[in-house]
Amino acid sequence: MNRLQQALDALVERIDTPAPIILADVMQDNIDRMQALADRQGLDVRPHVKTHKCVEIGRRQLKAGAVGITAGNVGEAEVFAKAGFDDIFIAYPLWAAGTKGQRIRKLAETTRLRVGADNVAAIHALADAMEDDAGQLEIVVEIDCGARRSGAPPAAAGELAAAARRRGLVPAGVFTYPGHGSAGPEARERAAKDQEAALIVAVRSLAAVGITPEVVSAGSTPTVEFATNSVITEIRPGEYVFNDLNNARLGACTQDQIALFVAATVVSDQVPGQVILDIGTKAIGREGSSEIGFGAIAGTSAVLAKLNEYHGFLPLPGGVRPRVGTVVPVVPNHVCPVVVNFEEYVVTESSGTSLERWAVDARGFLN
Amino acid sequence: MNRLQQALDALVERIDTPAPIILADVMQDNIDRMQALADRQGLDVRPHVKTHKCVEIGRRQLKAGAVGITAGNVGEAEVFAKAGFDDIFIAYPLWAAGTKGQRIRKLAETTRLRVGADNVAAIHALADAMEDDAGQLEIVVEIDCGARRSGAPPAAAGELAAAARRRGLVPAGVFTYPGHGSAGPEARERAAKDQEAALIVAVRSLAAVGITPEVVSAGSTPTVEFATNSVITEIRPGEYVFNDLNNARLGACTQDQIALFVAATVVSDQVPGQVILDIGTKAIGREGSSEIGFGAIAGTSAVLAKLNEYHGFLPLPGGVRPRVGTVVPVVPNHVCPVVVNFEEYVVTESSGTSLERWAVDARGFLN
Repeated sequence: MNRLQQALDALVERIDTPAPIILADVMQDNIDRMQALADRQGLDVRPHVKTHKCVEIGRRQLKAGAVGITAGNVGEAEVFAKAGFDDIFIAYPLWAAGTKGQRIRKLAETTRLRVGADNVAAIHALADAMEDDAGQLEIVVEIDCGARRSGAPPAAAGELAAAARRRGLVPAGVFTYPGHGSAGPEARERAAKDQEAALIVAVRSLAAVGITPEVVSAGSTPTVEFATNSVITEIRPGEYVFNDLNNARLGACTQDQIALFVAATVVSDQVPGQVILDIGTKAIGREGSSEIGFGAIAGTSAVLAKLNEYHGFLPLPGGVRPRVGTVVPVVPNHVCPVVVNFEEYVVTESSGTSLERWAVDARGFLN
Repeated sequence: MNRLQQALDALVERIDTPAPIILADVMQDNIDRMQALADRQGLDVRPHVKTHKCVEIGRRQLKAGAVGITAGNVGEAEVFAKAGFDDIFIAYPLWAAGTKGQRIRKLAETTRLRVGADNVAAIHALADAMEDDAGQLEIVVEIDCGARRSGAPPAAAGELAAAARRRGLVPAGVFTYPGHGSAGPEARERAAKDQEAALIVAVRSLAAVGITPEVVSAGSTPTVEFATNSVITEIRPGEYVFNDLNNARLGACTQDQIALFVAATVVSDQVPGQVILDIGTKAIGREGSSEIGFGAIAGTSAVLAKLNEYHGFLPLPGGVRPRVGTVVPVVPNHVCPVVVNFEEYVVTESSGTSLERWAVDARGFLN
């Protein structure tokens, strides 16, 4: 991760901290590598934009070959639709009440829209919201493959898809999220196998009601290298675009493939054994633990031991301490909660010479 | 906390979830009660706006009698200065490099500006940034009173204030943050005593270099009821405006004094023993633990057991489960990280009849 420090040294005079820095060359390599992996496996890529929430990055993913984008809520989908993205899957079990129902209907008028559903009541609410335009909304049934979060049992997929069809909605297929693949390096392949097995059951269940799915959609950065096209048609990785320490620990990326860090300044050195950085939970989230810390200084073994809102506590062994004013690159454990804290990214490349600023367009659009 | 559910029931058709809801009457009571407490003790109130980041709420705090506001970084101060606030204390050990130094200078031209400093290097950097206008910037020396975060030893306050004076800056006084008062109900009074003892030492240290402080500034919502005006001149509470479960556990507020919750919808009921709410770390932060959970359903003993980015896991005992589509009020453990996730507050009162939207003006302004 020393390239992070090198890039930072080159641009430190031009930025105020804390600031999230993207190395665009590393990010582009991540995008291209994921696309090449999917191409080899005969799978479509539909990247999850929740990780970056940035129109410019979404455009680069499409340019590399992505078939469309995945969003986590209606607000994200609206921001990207307004920017011209015309093939959006909200991979979330939406509840279409009140004005949210109207927003979904309006979105479906301007873009090809797929949304998740895992229960019959939600399907009826979506159909009610669409009124006479149900045929404009594609339903992708969510099934659980072992993450035990949302998703119907795989064998119930056909029943739910048939319910959508009866209400005039378009049953487009099934999706699942193998979240249990993040439990450890050895969990990744097992979760991918669970995912495939569950999707096979779901596809059979769809066949039993006469539905051939147009899409069979799978996660995720940690499991994607084990996905095959036996039934899966597309993958929805998100974190791969930036990567982070959690993915490096899982073996889902190398440390050199981490494309985002947060630049932070040492602001206080008054308490022995530590320094304070200007990076707290409002900049990097509270992702981590006392064991692994809450973010690491790139190229070192030092980790943030504790966070307040605007203060990061960095313990220092053996009396070594960076001087007040030193700017260091902090690599997050989990990158997704970082980006929502900032107005914009500082974008450079490994040499640190260029500097652009890209808006975090969909930050704050949570509902 | 049943009033939260009642207010929510009255406005549920008019909002999309997740959304942060303020009960303006409860909030106003909190503002007035804090002001009355300070008035009784002969202390000024300088509320910390990091908690709400909202100009309208800052105005209400001033109207109730606050002498000015406290900010956590330059960006927050800029947003409030632009909105007309003219007495701002950035209670943070600022490092005034590059463009941040220029921003501090510009801010000091338009508002009465106090900033924190806890080391000589930072004082020199501030003076350098101010160039010939050092006299426009007031320095408040930060001392540590036991939180072991930032802050010089109390006896060093005079030396630092003298260094500021030598550079033409205005040594306005001292401040400290008794963060160790949040360790438990019994820690509050002890931390307040530590705070007072440390400030007495600091004031003596200032006297030794011939400086009579204009301000001796103390925290914080959990400790404020134990503050006296023996040396302290002002208090900087932040969380009291909304309150939260952590403050209720500490005994620093009652549950009925909690003025903010996040409305969330049950979106999935497919995994036995739990339901999923549309509230994850990107809405409520990861504040809590497996013991206390990550947020509570108001008026019940149910707590979120686990969070993903857009999913909250709510375990349900004995087979009881709210139906999909049910909207519930989720009370955060720690309110400050919630507000930065949203564009705007939904503002109502306990009856839930009115509905306004107030911008979270300073969200994202982190540096």
